[in-house]
Amino acid sequence: MNPLQFTAETSSGGVMERDFTIGEVTGVLWSPASGPERAPLVLMGHGGGTHKKAPAMSGRAERLIAGCGFHVAVIDAPGHGGRPRTAVDEREIAAMRRARAAGEPVGPIVVRYNAHLAERAVPEWRATLDALQKLPEIGADGPVGYFGLNMGTAIGVPLVAADPRITAAVFGIFWHESLAETAQRITIPIEFVLQWDDEHIPRRSGLALFDAFASEEKTLHANAGRHKEVPRFEADSAVRFFARHLGRAVTSPA
Amino acid sequence: MNPLQFTAETSSGGVMERDFTIGEVTGVLWSPASGPERAPLVLMGHGGGTHKKAPAMSGRAERLIAGCGFHVAVIDAPGHGGRPRTAVDEREIAAMRRARAAGEPVGPIVVRYNAHLAERAVPEWRATLDALQKLPEIGADGPVGYFGLNMGTAIGVPLVAADPRITAAVFGIFWHESLAETAQRITIPIEFVLQWDDEHIPRRSGLALFDAFASEEKTLHANAGRHKEVPRFEADSAVRFFARHLGRAVTSPA
Repeated sequence: MNPLQFTAETSSGGVMERDFTIGEVTGVLWSPASGPERAPLVLMGHGGGTHKKAPAMSGRAERLIAGCGFHVAVIDAPGHGGRPRTAVDEREIAAMRRARAAGEPVGPIVVRYNAHLAERAVPEWRATLDALQKLPEIGADGPVGYFGLNMGTAIGVPLVAADPRITAAVFGIFWHESLAETAQRITIPIEFVLQWDDEHIPRRSGLALFDAFASEEKTLHANAGRHKEVPRFEADSAVRFFARHLGRAVTSPA
Repeated sequence: MNPLQFTAETSSGGVMERDFTIGEVTGVLWSPASGPERAPLVLMGHGGGTHKKAPAMSGRAERLIAGCGFHVAVIDAPGHGGRPRTAVDEREIAAMRRARAAGEPVGPIVVRYNAHLAERAVPEWRATLDALQKLPEIGADGPVGYFGLNMGTAIGVPLVAADPRITAAVFGIFWHESLAETAQRITIPIEFVLQWDDEHIPRRSGLALFDAFASEEKTLHANAGRHKEVPRFEADSAVRFFARHLGRAVTSPA
């Protein structure tokens, strides 16, 4: 098992940011700057074509820390954020570019490629969680959540199905085909985000994925708007969802 | 035009409760006990078979006042809360009882009866709003929201379509048949609550009603569970929705 190594540390606006590596996996751990108090951990999965420190990631981390004092970890997905690309990565990325240029649907390629990436990413995430739980401020028995939309859902659904340490998750903005069967094995509380006028994901497909989760507590948040127009208040809603399920009060209006 | 007359006043837990009548309409106005500061107004519609001071009404009012300092008004629907029943009321209530006793669906009767009640209730609500806006702590140009599920939606959708003073609304838990056409004329921000496993309202019918609203900003909150199992956190979500749209910060964790 590769150890977690911190490679950089900065602090600003109440947030401590620590870059880390675990073997060839690159990640970032955001924590309250006020100190290494033990607190719940939220794992976040980034979207396709972006990376661990994309604005959506740092923005959500900031809200989770300001609102609840959580730790938040993101790792770069395989082939993302400067991690080396394989021949499969290059081929699928080229296929997506060709489809976009030709005005053809990218959905089938995204579904296929993200399922492939999930196979590579799930063991990386589990090893990352092993390593993070060795840190005293996280610990082996603290609550763990997962928050990822788009590709973050394609990787997160099989991760959550495989790892019982994760006890609450926010998913959304993905097709049902590759994930519905796995979602049927998930019983933890779920918040699921969907865009009502998504130009890539058919409404019926998003609803079918939400429907598939076996969770007794699950909530669908469907917003008017297109694929990339998820409203900002959904990030605040996710903060409150994790506050409810990972056991922290929201300490500021979020 | 009948004047608003206050008939009783009590105060407890930071909330001032004033019963009122406007002609034969009976209502209640809840306000922050701290004083008659001008603040936005939320009109709330109660569910079928209940009344203006049902626990769902007083509970939501308390959250809206504690969270945002709003005024909250509820009136008894026609034939509800001690208001006299007409022959139509008696006939439809008997029809619902028979259907329930026979294990037959009540949906068609509820849809028909609530459409009838809405025709009587909408003018009452508009006169109530006229009268409430004459109070100095509400005023003629302050923001107004509407919050009603079940029968509160059956009455609220035609009310909101008819009255441009209402600029944000929370609806849900109703069939589409009698309301979808009217909803197509509504363009204000909407939050819409639906139960994913509603034993009375087909999922497709609830989704069709949400779909019908012409609002550019609309959000569907669909929760796992049956007709009467709407989670409590939806009331907190409604508080935040009104805080966003009627222009008040949420002042305590809600």
